[in-house]
Amino acid sequence: MRGFARRTTVDAALAWVDGQCQRLPSEQVSVWQAAGRVLARDVVSGVSVPGFSRSMMDGFAVQAADTLGASAYSGLELQFIGQSLPGQPFDGTVGRGQAVRIMTGAPLPAGADAVVPAERAELRETRVAVLDAVSPGKNVGQAGEDVLPGATVLRAGRPLRPQDSGLLSSIGLPEMAVVRRPRVRIIITGNELLAAGTPPQGDRITDANGPMLKALVERDGGIARLRSLPLALEEDWREGVLNSAESHSALDYLVPDEPAAILAAMREDAEVVLVSGGSSVGQEDHAPLLLAQHGNLAIHGIAMRPSSPAGMGRLGGKIVFLLPGNPVSCLCAYDFFAARAIRLLGGRSAEWPYRCERLPLQRKLVSQVGRVDYARVRRVEGKAEPIAISGASILSSTTTADGFIVVPADSEGYAAGAEVNVWQY
Amino acid sequence: MRGFARRTTVDAALAWVDGQCQRLPSEQVSVWQAAGRVLARDVVSGVSVPGFSRSMMDGFAVQAADTLGASAYSGLELQFIGQSLPGQPFDGTVGRGQAVRIMTGAPLPAGADAVVPAERAELRETRVAVLDAVSPGKNVGQAGEDVLPGATVLRAGRPLRPQDSGLLSSIGLPEMAVVRRPRVRIIITGNELLAAGTPPQGDRITDANGPMLKALVERDGGIARLRSLPLALEEDWREGVLNSAESHSALDYLVPDEPAAILAAMREDAEVVLVSGGSSVGQEDHAPLLLAQHGNLAIHGIAMRPSSPAGMGRLGGKIVFLLPGNPVSCLCAYDFFAARAIRLLGGRSAEWPYRCERLPLQRKLVSQVGRVDYARVRRVEGKAEPIAISGASILSSTTTADGFIVVPADSEGYAAGAEVNVWQY
Repeated sequence: MRGFARRTTVDAALAWVDGQCQRLPSEQVSVWQAAGRVLARDVVSGVSVPGFSRSMMDGFAVQAADTLGASAYSGLELQFIGQSLPGQPFDGTVGRGQAVRIMTGAPLPAGADAVVPAERAELRETRVAVLDAVSPGKNVGQAGEDVLPGATVLRAGRPLRPQDSGLLSSIGLPEMAVVRRPRVRIIITGNELLAAGTPPQGDRITDANGPMLKALVERDGGIARLRSLPLALEEDWREGVLNSAESHSALDYLVPDEPAAILAAMREDAEVVLVSGGSSVGQEDHAPLLLAQHGNLAIHGIAMRPSSPAGMGRLGGKIVFLLPGNPVSCLCAYDFFAARAIRLLGGRSAEWPYRCERLPLQRKLVSQVGRVDYARVRRVEGKAEPIAISGASILSSTTTADGFIVVPADSEGYAAGAEVNVWQY
Repeated sequence: MRGFARRTTVDAALAWVDGQCQRLPSEQVSVWQAAGRVLARDVVSGVSVPGFSRSMMDGFAVQAADTLGASAYSGLELQFIGQSLPGQPFDGTVGRGQAVRIMTGAPLPAGADAVVPAERAELRETRVAVLDAVSPGKNVGQAGEDVLPGATVLRAGRPLRPQDSGLLSSIGLPEMAVVRRPRVRIIITGNELLAAGTPPQGDRITDANGPMLKALVERDGGIARLRSLPLALEEDWREGVLNSAESHSALDYLVPDEPAAILAAMREDAEVVLVSGGSSVGQEDHAPLLLAQHGNLAIHGIAMRPSSPAGMGRLGGKIVFLLPGNPVSCLCAYDFFAARAIRLLGGRSAEWPYRCERLPLQRKLVSQVGRVDYARVRRVEGKAEPIAISGASILSSTTTADGFIVVPADSEGYAAGAEVNVWQY
């Protein structure tokens, strides 16, 4: 029951994380599932989009030279010879003095080089009166104007937007290589805990970290696992909390504070392990010792508040994060270190997914040199108001907060009115 | 084959959308599935969190009065009578002159009113030397300090954060009422289209809007449906594009450009219908006529570029959006109108999910008074550079762009150097 001999700086811990996290290998996903994933390889188009010249308007495909001098006052008459619809092109050739009715997106017939818009022409039985001159190429989309064959349409490392999946679809790809999502085993320990879904009673509290970490991991592109079950069964279990006739305790995911149970869970198949609870140096803090004995406890104790009793290391191929059980500490340590690892493994930016806003501080915020502080703030009348409650166990301080401020290790804090970066939850 | 007689302003179309969209009723979800959903009702806690006073440190539970005068130079000795661990509280009472070893989070034993941190005390067999005085309440978390019974912990309308699901779990809720996700039937029409997953060939292009709209709908919290199948089968189908032995065409979701087929799809069970393609006033544009005949075509033709041939209306209980088939128009009309409807129905903010940044324009951007322009821009050296290609069919203009500018209807455009709002994709 001793404190930490020495605390690692936040910067050193971040550098350790960065050194451990190489982008995972790729997997193939369908174009329907691509948005939100990270592209693993450059995509080069094998085709032209469109593969043919087409009309950009509803109107008449003509030879532009035939429209010279046409105006609303002196319409020129062309011979109407047929129509071109999307998917049903005109078979013949547009000769001098001829016109083909054409719809937006339909292939431009052979011989034609421009389209007169419908509003500038009139169909009169077998003749088309053209009321405006058009130049060659007018209202025509050229083959390949969207994508040329051989063009790199999207580069490796790109988080795919909705329109990217549209573009990938348009070049005919049924599937593409994206970075695999890191599998994250969430281990919730603590003999005082009751499973989520159970009312707290007596000397027991209900687990908050399990549902919170699951949501955080998914936000960062990881696959969250709380039980040693096949993923489909785990999903059934989580859905089933609602309808199951079984009691919640029968479906319990909590791991007892016993070294063998924790070690077994840490050894399950995953790229990242999060252990919530028992991360410090007390007699019930098994995870750091297990990691030191069976793997490598690289960092234990960090110069920050909250989350100072956090740690990290490796066990076989896995990166293990030891997160304090207090929920604010757990959230903070997750966001600083574990989120970064999950995002980097998944090929994403190390940056927080929070918007950052510059706001003046509503009142003084005191910190301690040598320590990074994570201070929850509310946004009140355009100012950032620090939330008075600083306890690492007060999860409601993160739900009443609009965001947080990070006070760096070299700062004694900020004066009232100072402009600070507020990271918005 | 005539143009629109009159175009509705963007503001009027937005007002129409707002008037149609009431928040959907609620459904219950498990606390594991709550994050990202929108709370439908205020949540009032029925319990205290924590339900008992507990230690905030590893140390010794004592009567504070017994530590008066203790210091590193003159330790005071107390009788060691047992321990309190999380989930395994001390059974007895701490009397004058006594101390109980206690772990962070463990219940404070009866009689004790403070905790001496482990670093400020030494256990010597049956005695505890206390090296520091503590005041009453020191290092003790009081019952209810996180949540009090009867407190409203979260309010209706809140999009739930990861930590919110932790807080909801901590008060013992297995499930909660959230706003139902709107079901969105995506109807992709166009005889020139091949299904996603098929290489484009000849006079046919491969559908881009299906995968794009599916991703957009999911981004906005809707449930996207592309086929008239039960949802599970639809998901199997989308996953199955990858592994299925069947040809993609056999699994085709495209709806033929035939009034009966389009009407049948529009009548399927959903809150929102998106029809991609055939939205204009040409002979193959069936959807506006169908909506006018069988429901209400409220708006058709909008004073904007691209997307002017967009429309919207109602069919029975559904809100129907007619989106142009050109993919940039489709994206733009979706983002302006359909996204707003889906977000409002789902209880979300009408605001775009794009970050907005003020940037100077790299060069002049010309627009037309009376029309809203949606201009794609690249971010080059801290400036917004309009992308030269303005064609509504050039989807790659939205993938090479970093975002877009909206030029309002009363503006002729912006001069080079003008500061503009850039919405970041």
